[in-house]
Amino acid sequence: MNKTITIAHGNGGEENNELITSIFYKHFKNDILSKSEDAAVLGVPHDSIVMTTDSFTVSPLFFPGGDIGKLAVCGTCNDIAMMGAQPKYLTCSVIIEEGFSTRELEKIVRSMKKELELNNAMIVSGDTKVVPKGSVDKLFINTTGIGEIMQPGISAHNLKEGMRVIVSRDIGRHGAAIFAAREGITLESSLETDCASLYPQVKALIDVGVKIVAMRDATRGGVAAVLNEWAKTSEVCIEIEEEKIPVSEEVRGICEMLGFEAVNLANEGTFVLAILPEDEHKAIEVLQQFNTDATAIGTVTHQHDGKVILNSSWGTKRFLDLPTGELLPRIC
Amino acid sequence: MNKTITIAHGNGGEENNELITSIFYKHFKNDILSKSEDAAVLGVPHDSIVMTTDSFTVSPLFFPGGDIGKLAVCGTCNDIAMMGAQPKYLTCSVIIEEGFSTRELEKIVRSMKKELELNNAMIVSGDTKVVPKGSVDKLFINTTGIGEIMQPGISAHNLKEGMRVIVSRDIGRHGAAIFAAREGITLESSLETDCASLYPQVKALIDVGVKIVAMRDATRGGVAAVLNEWAKTSEVCIEIEEEKIPVSEEVRGICEMLGFEAVNLANEGTFVLAILPEDEHKAIEVLQQFNTDATAIGTVTHQHDGKVILNSSWGTKRFLDLPTGELLPRIC
Repeated sequence: MNKTITIAHGNGGEENNELITSIFYKHFKNDILSKSEDAAVLGVPHDSIVMTTDSFTVSPLFFPGGDIGKLAVCGTCNDIAMMGAQPKYLTCSVIIEEGFSTRELEKIVRSMKKELELNNAMIVSGDTKVVPKGSVDKLFINTTGIGEIMQPGISAHNLKEGMRVIVSRDIGRHGAAIFAAREGITLESSLETDCASLYPQVKALIDVGVKIVAMRDATRGGVAAVLNEWAKTSEVCIEIEEEKIPVSEEVRGICEMLGFEAVNLANEGTFVLAILPEDEHKAIEVLQQFNTDATAIGTVTHQHDGKVILNSSWGTKRFLDLPTGELLPRIC
Repeated sequence: MNKTITIAHGNGGEENNELITSIFYKHFKNDILSKSEDAAVLGVPHDSIVMTTDSFTVSPLFFPGGDIGKLAVCGTCNDIAMMGAQPKYLTCSVIIEEGFSTRELEKIVRSMKKELELNNAMIVSGDTKVVPKGSVDKLFINTTGIGEIMQPGISAHNLKEGMRVIVSRDIGRHGAAIFAAREGITLESSLETDCASLYPQVKALIDVGVKIVAMRDATRGGVAAVLNEWAKTSEVCIEIEEEKIPVSEEVRGICEMLGFEAVNLANEGTFVLAILPEDEHKAIEVLQQFNTDATAIGTVTHQHDGKVILNSSWGTKRFLDLPTGELLPRIC
């Protein structure tokens, strides 16, 4: 392979085959992908599956704790896991700017491979486009995945009064880490993205018999976006104890610089869970095996349906609204 | 909605919801998509499905006979149809450059909708990213789809001596049309892309009992790429009667300007079919109902395994190799 990707690598001919074989097939190797047909033939033992898609445009491509490859697999596998499903088959479509480093491309593909293994998932079909310099900023990845449902019925429509709301760890790390990386801010402490595959945690919750009512990873728009969507969709109020929300010191520092709130920052390995009060102890016990910051942060009420209320430790209340404005572009 | 897309439209918050609702949900409306969960829950009546992905980076976005939206649905649905399957569920992921026209976006989404209806398929999950000016050239679309197999066993591995090779219509139109549009060439005759959904033709072939051995739409790399892949994969020789290959006058004209051969030009609604000789008459009869240029162009032999041979009408022979070099970037 050349040291850089050329336009010819996207020609549908000889050089295109070389790129696919020497980088993608090499790392994603499996019997289905190797057949190299127009579409992959997949066995589906269940009669219902879940399907989700995500395009990744994150900048920079490499950041503390991850890269676009890890993010592309986590992002799609996590959306599957959030439906109580096991990630199974993924497609991978890459748009590469002419002149991109072949070594960096392979590094990204290796990250994808590693993360796929954690999900017990595989790439079954792919596409590679090379575009002229200036048509794309370095590299974008789309992953689309299907998964098999382990626990059916999880939905943003199901929240009811008295249910408890839990976060799986401290929030806002991904947004803060990307911002710091982009602005060249080096912190004394090592702030890293939370980017991680959530399937193991979901499986552990289901294995101990936690009945998951609603579950969502708090990506773009952060925890605030998830809670607002739930409050609207289920026509309930979600009351959050502000001081219970776990936020690390590093993220607090970045938030002050940015003028943002941690609840609006993107996460890529942090999820919000709604469960029955009787499952709270069991759920937190499981989640704390993965991260000790897992904790209950609030309760579903009918105080003000369709809205999220933040209760401060001084007894004051305010609405937590859906984020608006520019936030951080190219966060994922 | 604003007249142009802003960074805020990709924030995961209020404006993002507005964009999704007022453009994507509006046109793609269906019960599965409306649930708006992290992943769509799909019924799968069959125990095996096909899955394929494609990213579309075509330039210009609008061209004679189509646009990137039509292309994005045709491309993925055709890859499904080429496996003898019925397109069923698609995802749609769009990366938009800040400042892109909302009206043009809606025009593209309308084209997608129209083409989805021809395939009896629907969008079940989506993703929208807005990136700052200069990070992407206008708009890229990824579509990923799954389909239900109507006739199993179609594969590039199955070609055997004596089988006949058919093309569904005249070749090279998409490549030629994009080149002409990009270079501002106006031809007296109206050269249009062949971009079209192939599922109706495939269904018609299966309905009359044609046993399809191998089938592939001749996209990037053209008919030459398909034939070479088949010859290699099945370890056979494919002998083509050069004068039988249907090429329109307009495409011939563009080929002369480009210095390309029509067999290397991309198609987006033209496919190559390998069948048993006893099915030839029936297959051509069906295909000619869609396009009168459908014709047999060659035969599978063992003259030179792994290679494609072009026989000219003067009795000369030459190898038709896999295309190499730059060809046309951003053709699809």
